[in-house]
Amino acid sequence: MEHKVRDPALAPRGKQQIYWAERNMPVLMRIRARLEREKPLAGLTVAASLHVTKETAVLVKTLAAGGAQVILIPSNPLSTQDDVAAALAEEGIGVYAWRGMNEREYYNAIGFAISHNPDLTMDDGADLTVSLHKLAHGIADKTLDYVTEVAKGVDFVKVASKIRGGTEETTTGVIRLRALHKEGKLLYPIIAVNESYTKHLFDNRYGTGQSTWDGIMRAANALIAGKVVVVAGYGWVGKGIAARARGLGARRVIVTEVNPIRALEAVFDGFEVMPMSQAAEIGDVFITATGDIRVIDLDDILRMKDGAILANAGHFNVEIDVEGLERIAKSKRTIRPYLDEYELPGGKRVYLIGEGRLVNLVAAEGHPSEVMDMSFANQALAAEYLAKNKLGIGVYKLPDELDAEVARLKLEAMGIKIDELTEEQRKYISSWELGT
Amino acid sequence: MEHKVRDPALAPRGKQQIYWAERNMPVLMRIRARLEREKPLAGLTVAASLHVTKETAVLVKTLAAGGAQVILIPSNPLSTQDDVAAALAEEGIGVYAWRGMNEREYYNAIGFAISHNPDLTMDDGADLTVSLHKLAHGIADKTLDYVTEVAKGVDFVKVASKIRGGTEETTTGVIRLRALHKEGKLLYPIIAVNESYTKHLFDNRYGTGQSTWDGIMRAANALIAGKVVVVAGYGWVGKGIAARARGLGARRVIVTEVNPIRALEAVFDGFEVMPMSQAAEIGDVFITATGDIRVIDLDDILRMKDGAILANAGHFNVEIDVEGLERIAKSKRTIRPYLDEYELPGGKRVYLIGEGRLVNLVAAEGHPSEVMDMSFANQALAAEYLAKNKLGIGVYKLPDELDAEVARLKLEAMGIKIDELTEEQRKYISSWELGT
Amino acid sequence: MEHKVRDPALAPRGKQQIYWAERNMPVLMRIRARLEREKPLAGLTVAASLHVTKETAVLVKTLAAGGAQVILIPSNPLSTQDDVAAALAEEGIGVYAWRGMNEREYYNAIGFAISHNPDLTMDDGADLTVSLHKLAHGIADKTLDYVTEVAKGVDFVKVASKIRGGTEETTTGVIRLRALHKEGKLLYPIIAVNESYTKHLFDNRYGTGQSTWDGIMRAANALIAGKVVVVAGYGWVGKGIAARARGLGARRVIVTEVNPIRALEAVFDGFEVMPMSQAAEIGDVFITATGDIRVIDLDDILRMKDGAILANAGHFNVEIDVEGLERIAKSKRTIRPYLDEYELPGGKRVYLIGEGRLVNLVAAEGHPSEVMDMSFANQALAAEYLAKNKLGIGVYKLPDELDAEVARLKLEAMGIKIDELTEEQRKYISSWELGT
Amino acid sequence: MEHKVRDPALAPRGKQQIYWAERNMPVLMRIRARLEREKPLAGLTVAASLHVTKETAVLVKTLAAGGAQVILIPSNPLSTQDDVAAALAEEGIGVYAWRGMNEREYYNAIGFAISHNPDLTMDDGADLTVSLHKLAHGIADKTLDYVTEVAKGVDFVKVASKIRGGTEETTTGVIRLRALHKEGKLLYPIIAVNESYTKHLFDNRYGTGQSTWDGIMRAANALIAGKVVVVAGYGWVGKGIAARARGLGARRVIVTEVNPIRALEAVFDGFEVMPMSQAAEIGDVFITATGDIRVIDLDDILRMKDGAILANAGHFNVEIDVEGLERIAKSKRTIRPYLDEYELPGGKRVYLIGEGRLVNLVAAEGHPSEVMDMSFANQALAAEYLAKNKLGIGVYKLPDELDAEVARLKLEAMGIKIDELTEEQRKYISSWELGT
Repeated sequence: MEHKVRDPALAPRGKQQIYWAERNMPVLMRIRARLEREKPLAGLTVAASLHVTKETAVLVKTLAAGGAQVILIPSNPLSTQDDVAAALAEEGIGVYAWRGMNEREYYNAIGFAISHNPDLTMDDGADLTVSLHKLAHGIADKTLDYVTEVAKGVDFVKVASKIRGGTEETTTGVIRLRALHKEGKLLYPIIAVNESYTKHLFDNRYGTGQSTWDGIMRAANALIAGKVVVVAGYGWVGKGIAARARGLGARRVIVTEVNPIRALEAVFDGFEVMPMSQAAEIGDVFITATGDIRVIDLDDILRMKDGAILANAGHFNVEIDVEGLERIAKSKRTIRPYLDEYELPGGKRVYLIGEGRLVNLVAAEGHPSEVMDMSFANQALAAEYLAKNKLGIGVYKLPDELDAEVARLKLEAMGIKIDELTEEQRKYISSWELGT
Repeated sequence: MEHKVRDPALAPRGKQQIYWAERNMPVLMRIRARLEREKPLAGLTVAASLHVTKETAVLVKTLAAGGAQVILIPSNPLSTQDDVAAALAEEGIGVYAWRGMNEREYYNAIGFAISHNPDLTMDDGADLTVSLHKLAHGIADKTLDYVTEVAKGVDFVKVASKIRGGTEETTTGVIRLRALHKEGKLLYPIIAVNESYTKHLFDNRYGTGQSTWDGIMRAANALIAGKVVVVAGYGWVGKGIAARARGLGARRVIVTEVNPIRALEAVFDGFEVMPMSQAAEIGDVFITATGDIRVIDLDDILRMKDGAILANAGHFNVEIDVEGLERIAKSKRTIRPYLDEYELPGGKRVYLIGEGRLVNLVAAEGHPSEVMDMSFANQALAAEYLAKNKLGIGVYKLPDELDAEVARLKLEAMGIKIDELTEEQRKYISSWELGT
Repeated sequence: MEHKVRDPALAPRGKQQIYWAERNMPVLMRIRARLEREKPLAGLTVAASLHVTKETAVLVKTLAAGGAQVILIPSNPLSTQDDVAAALAEEGIGVYAWRGMNEREYYNAIGFAISHNPDLTMDDGADLTVSLHKLAHGIADKTLDYVTEVAKGVDFVKVASKIRGGTEETTTGVIRLRALHKEGKLLYPIIAVNESYTKHLFDNRYGTGQSTWDGIMRAANALIAGKVVVVAGYGWVGKGIAARARGLGARRVIVTEVNPIRALEAVFDGFEVMPMSQAAEIGDVFITATGDIRVIDLDDILRMKDGAILANAGHFNVEIDVEGLERIAKSKRTIRPYLDEYELPGGKRVYLIGEGRLVNLVAAEGHPSEVMDMSFANQALAAEYLAKNKLGIGVYKLPDELDAEVARLKLEAMGIKIDELTEEQRKYISSWELGT
Repeated sequence: MEHKVRDPALAPRGKQQIYWAERNMPVLMRIRARLEREKPLAGLTVAASLHVTKETAVLVKTLAAGGAQVILIPSNPLSTQDDVAAALAEEGIGVYAWRGMNEREYYNAIGFAISHNPDLTMDDGADLTVSLHKLAHGIADKTLDYVTEVAKGVDFVKVASKIRGGTEETTTGVIRLRALHKEGKLLYPIIAVNESYTKHLFDNRYGTGQSTWDGIMRAANALIAGKVVVVAGYGWVGKGIAARARGLGARRVIVTEVNPIRALEAVFDGFEVMPMSQAAEIGDVFITATGDIRVIDLDDILRMKDGAILANAGHFNVEIDVEGLERIAKSKRTIRPYLDEYELPGGKRVYLIGEGRLVNLVAAEGHPSEVMDMSFANQALAAEYLAKNKLGIGVYKLPDELDAEVARLKLEAMGIKIDELTEEQRKYISSWELGT
C-alpha cells in the first residue's frame, strides 16, 4: 500500500522489534488470533494517528488480521521509530511517518490519512479527529493548509459523515473531544479508550510512571536517589511518576496541583504539596503531567536552581514554556542526545529534555509492551465494537464487560488465578436484609 | 436528655478524649463554628448509629451546635468507648451505648433511636435504616423483636415517612441501601457519604490501613517485618491495608480478589495475587476487607499454618467463618485481650483477633481523628444539605463542590497551599481547538 | 526465691503472656531445649537488669533451664509488666521489679541484685554494671546510697572480682562500657551483645522501628500519613524509625545527624536532612534516637508548631530536655495514658509521650517477641560462652559463628532455605588468580 | 601522549559528555581545584584500569591536574565509551581503550600500562594488579602472553618494586587482593577504596541499584511493575537492586543467598528468600550480584519459564553460566542491542543481556555521575595519600577522616547542613558515669 517512511532498509530491525513486542503483548495476541478467524473488520479502512512504535505495530497488525486496511500516521513528530515504520510498510500498512517530521510534514500526514476516506479513526491526543472536524466545520487554521496540501479536493463533510466512529487513547484527547461534543460539533461517535480501567489505571500510571524515568535516566544519566523531584499534576500519570520517584530514592517528592482533592490525596500518599512558584526554587528535576499549558512558566524557570532538569510527560509540548525559554536564553546547546542546556540571563543553566515533548517517547521507547498490551487490547476491542454496533453521536466508555475481559486475559497470560464469588457470597453482597 | 451508658463517672476522661479529637479535627471544628452561627439543624432530631468513639463525639457535638437534638446508638456491639459515651450523655446527647452489648441490647438501642421519631438518620453499616425499613415493610426477623421491645407501639411507616433523609458512612452500607432501592423499597433519600472522594479515598484507605495494623499490633504484639500477609479484597480498605503491610516490612503481601481489574491492579501495585485456598497455606496473618461473607471459610482455616493470625477489617463479623471455627475447635482460650487461641482438630492453633469483628475498632481506637475529620465533615455537610434541600427518594453522592470544600478546608488546616488555574489554562483545558 | 513484685495474683495473666512470647521465640526455645539437657549454667547466679517483659521472661526461664539461679531487676523504672513479674516470681526467679518505681526503688533493685553476689551480669543500658563499678572504685553518687540501702555491708570489690563476665544489650550501654574500659577501670569482661549482627541489624532496626510507632499510635492515636516526621539520629534505631515513618505514609521524613556519612546515607535513602533547629519549625512528630543528651533542647521546643508530638526512642530520658520543659511550661496535664500536654509561654501546646522515656516500652510493649528472639538468643549464648570460657578483661563481640548460628536457627524456624556455596564457588571466591 | 582509541573525531562529543559529568561531580571538582594548586602528584605516573566512562574522565583529569601523567586502560572489554576515550586522548591522557576489545586487545592494554613503569596503579576488579603480580611471580597464563606482546622485555619484578601503591575500586577486586596478600605474594600496598563508607554505601547500593535497572530497561524495554524479580546476592549491590525492584513495582522480589545473616536481613527487609533452584522456576527477571561463579547454572536456566530475562550486575561475566548456555542452545539471535535470545532444547526461550557482562556498563552508562563523584573522590584522595605516605605492604582502608571529608564535601555541594555535637553532648556520649 502507499506509504512514506525514512528508510525501507530498516525493516528487518523493525521486524525484530515487533517480534519482541508481540512476545510481551499476550492479550493483544489472543485477540488477534480471534479477529483473524472472525474478520470483523473486513472491508473497513482504519486511519490511526498513534505513536509509531513497536507496540503500535502489534495493534496495527492485529487490525489488519481482523480484515481492516490500515493507515498509520504519527501522533507526535518526534516519537516515530523508523525501523518499525519500515517494517510495517513492508507488511502492507499505509504508514506515513518518520522521526523528526516538521510541522508541515506532520499535518501532511493527517491529510494523507483523511484522503483515504476511513471508516474508523484512532487517535492519541485527537489531532486527526480535531483537524477533520475543523475542516468539516470550515474553521481556518494555518496547520489545515498543510492538511489540504495532501488531502486535495476532499469533501471533509462527506468524509466525516461516512465515519462509523473513532477511538481516543489519552486523557487530554478525551477532554478535547468532550469539549467538542459539548459545543454540539462532534460529527461521529467516539469511544474514550482512556476511560477503560484496564487502560488508565495501568498505562497512565505504571507505563508512564516507569517510562518517564527511563527517558530521564537515558537523557541525563542522573541519579534519582537524593534528588528533589517536582511533579506537576497528580492525575494517573502524575501518580505513577511520583510513586516511581519515591521508589528510585528521591529525597523529596513534591507535587503541584490545582485540584484540592488530588492535592490532598498526594499529601496522604506521602508527598509534599506546594505551589509551583515555591517548588521551583528547590527542585532538582521537574516533570509536568497536567495536560494544560504553561504549567511551568518563565517566572518559575527563572526561580530554579542552577542545573535544574525539566521534562514533560503530558501530551503536548506546551506544559513547559519552551517558547519563552528559547526567547530569553542567552545561549543554548545540545549536551547529549535529547538534552539541551539553556543559559539563563544571570548565568544559571537549566536542562530541557526532548524539547519539552513527551519525554518517554522522545528520550526512551514509550511505554513497555506489557502495559500497552492492555491499552491496545482496548483499542482493538473498541474498533471491533464500532464495527459491529451503530452508536449515536457521543463520547462513550467501552462496555464494562470488555474492560473486565481485558483484565481477565492479562491475568491468564501472567498465570495468575483469582477467586470467584460463591453463590452464598453473591447473594449476600446483593442483599439489603442481611447484616450484623 | 434520656440516655443509658456504662458509667457516668467516666465522663471527665471522656471529655479529655474528645478534647484530643477536637484538636485533630480542624475541618469539622471549622464547620462547627459556622453551624453554630447559622443553626441550620434547629428543630431537627438526628438519630445516629455510629461507632461511639471520641471522633464521633466531635461530629455529634457539631450537629448539636447546629441546633439538632441528637440520639446516638452504636453501629457495632464491641466498639463503644464508655468514657466518651459518658461525656456525651453529660452534655445532653441521647446516648444509648456501652461496650460489649449483647445482640438484644444492640437492637434495643435501635428501638431507642426509632422511638425518638427522627428527622434525619445517620448510619454506619445501615443497621438502623435497614431495621426501620424491615419494620415499615412488615418483614419479620428475630432481631426486630428486640427493636420493638423498646420502640413499643411505634408506627414505623409513619416514622419512616417523616424522615427527610439519611446518610450512610460505609461501602457495605451503601451496597445494602442501593439493593434496597433497586427493589423499590427505599422509603427516604440517602446520601452515600462513602462516595465522597474526601471520605473513601482517605478514611477507607489511610484510616483503616493504619488502624487495622494498630489493632493487630496491640492484640498480637507481632512483628510485621518478615511476615507473609494475606489481604482479602482490594477495594479502598484492602488497598490501604496492603500498602501498610508493605510499609511495615512484610516479606510477602498476598491479595485475594474476585474482580479481575482489581486483581490486576494489585499485581501492578507490586502485590501477589492468588486464590484464598492457596494463600491459606502460606500466610502468617490474614485480614479480610471485602464486605462479603465467609471469605475465609473452614476449609481455608484448616489449611493454615500453626500460629496463623486472623483479623477482619470489613464491616461485619461474617467475613471469617467464626461460627464454623467455634464449632470445630477442640479448645479455645483468650491469651491476651482480644486474642483468642483456637486449637484445631489435629493440633494446629490459630489466633482470632476481636472475635472477627472490626479489628481497628475492637482492638485499637478506630481511625485516627485526622482522617475521621474529613469523613465526619462530609457527614455534617450531608446533614445540613438534607436539612436545606428536599430530595426525591434515591441514593445520592454529596455534591462535588461540598466534597472539594472539605479538601480545601483540610489543606488550609494543614497549612498547605496549592496552585490555581490561570485564565489561559482554564481556557486551554476546556478547548478542543488548541493542540500540538 | 526472694522477690518483690506489684501483685502476685497477676501471675496467671503473666503466664499467658509468656506462653505467647514463647510461641514467637523459636530460636530461644531451641536453645532452651539444648541448655536444659546440657546445664552449662549449673551453679551460677545471673543478675540481669533488663526490661521486665514477656520476652525477657522467656530468656530468664531459658537461663534457669540451663541451671542458673536468676535475679531479675528492671533496666527502666517505667517498663515493667507487672503480670510477667508476678509469673516469674511464682516460677522461682528472684524478681525485684514493678512498674512505676521511683528513683530510690530503682537503685534499691540494683542493690538487691548485687547483694546476691552474681557470677554473671546482664545489662540493658549498663546501669547495673556501672553502679557496681562506681561502688568498687569508691566513686560517690546519690543513687549509690539507694543501692547500699539494700546491699548493706557488701564488699563491692570482692563482688566484682568474682564475676566471670557480663553482657550488655544496647548501643548506649556498650558506649559507656567501652569508655569505662578506656579509662582502665573495667573490672570484668563484657560481651557486647549489641554488636552481634543478629542483634543490632534486627532488634534496633525492625524491632524499635515498629514498636516506636506502635507506642506513638497508642499514646496519641495519630494518623501518620500526611505528617511531617523528624527523626534525630540515623543509627540502626533511627534508620528503622525513619523507614517505618515512610511506610506509614509520612509526607516528609526529616533526619537530623551530627555524622556526615550517616547524614548522607539518610539523604540517599530518600530522607531530608537538616539541623534540628530548622526541623523544629516544621515537624509534626519528633522522635529522638541518638543516645545523647538534649538533642531536642528548649530552643527547639519553643520553635515548634502548636500541637507537636515528642517521643524518645533512645535509651535514656535525657534526649529531650524534659526538665527544661517542665520548668518553663505554663501548665501541664495528662490527656490520655502516656500523653502529657504542656502549654508553653505564648500559648502553643506540645505533647510529650511517656515522660520522654523509651516510647516503645512505656506506651507499647517493647519489641515484638519475634525480634527479641534473636537478641535474647545472643544473650543466652553469651551467658553460656562466659560460663565455658575464661576471658581477659575487655569488651568483646560474640564469636561470628554463634552470630551466624542464631541466623541459621531463625531461618530454619521460619521455614526458609538458602543456598550453599559449591566447592567451585568456594574456591573461586578465595582465589586471586581467577578473573575476567 | 601515546594512545590508541577508536576514532579521534569523536572527541568533541566526548568533551560534552565530560562537561556533563563535571557538572554532576562537585566533590571531585573541589578536590581537583585543590590538587591543581598543590600538585601532590607531580612527577608520578598513574596507571589506571577503569571503565572508560565520562566519570572516569573527570577522575583522570583530576589526577592530571594534580601533576600526574596518566595511563588509562579499560577494566572491561565492553564498557568503554569511545567518544570519552577520544576526548581524553586529545587532552594528553595515555588512553588505550575502545569498546568491544577482544581478549587479546584487552590484555595488550595491560601490557601498555605496565610498560609505562607506573608509580601508582588504580584498579577496578584487580586485573592490572593481578596480571603484574603473576608476571612478577613467574606464573604462566595464556592472557599474560598478550600482556608481554606489548610490554616486551619489561622486568616485571622491577616494575612492581618501584610502585608506591595501588588502589582497588570493587568488592571483588579487594577479595582477590586480600587473597593475594594472605598467600604472602602482595608486592606493594593497596588501598581498598571500596571499603570507604562513602564508596560502598553509596556507589554499590544506589549507583548499581539504579543503573542495573536502567540497563535492563534499555535492553529489554520491560515493565518492571508486576514482575517476579530474582536477585542473587544480598551484599551492598544486591541490596540496592532489590530495593529498586521494589520501588519499580515488582510483585515479588526474591533474594538468593549463601550467608544466613544476609539472608535473614533480606527477609526482614521485606523480600522473599529461597534457593536459586526454586527461584529459577518462578522468576521473570534474574540478576546476579555475588562476585562468584555459576550462581545461575545450567540446571537453573533449564528450569526457567519461557521468556525469562537474565542479567549480571557482579563484576565478571561468570556469574551466569553463559558458556554452558551457548553450548546447549538450539539457536541464538540478537533481538535488540544487548539482548540475545537463546532457544533452549524443548523450545523455551531465555534472554541474556549484554553477554552476561556488567549490565549497567554494557547496556546503560554505568553509575550516574553523582555517585561516582564520591567513589572517585576516594580514589583521588587515595592517590594523594599514597603519594604523600610510605605504607608497608598490606591492604588498607582509607583513613576515616578522609572518608568523612568526602561526605562533608558532598553534603556541602548539595546545600545540606547538619548538626554538630555541643560540648555537653560530646562529654555525655563519651562518659561512662552518666546514666539514667
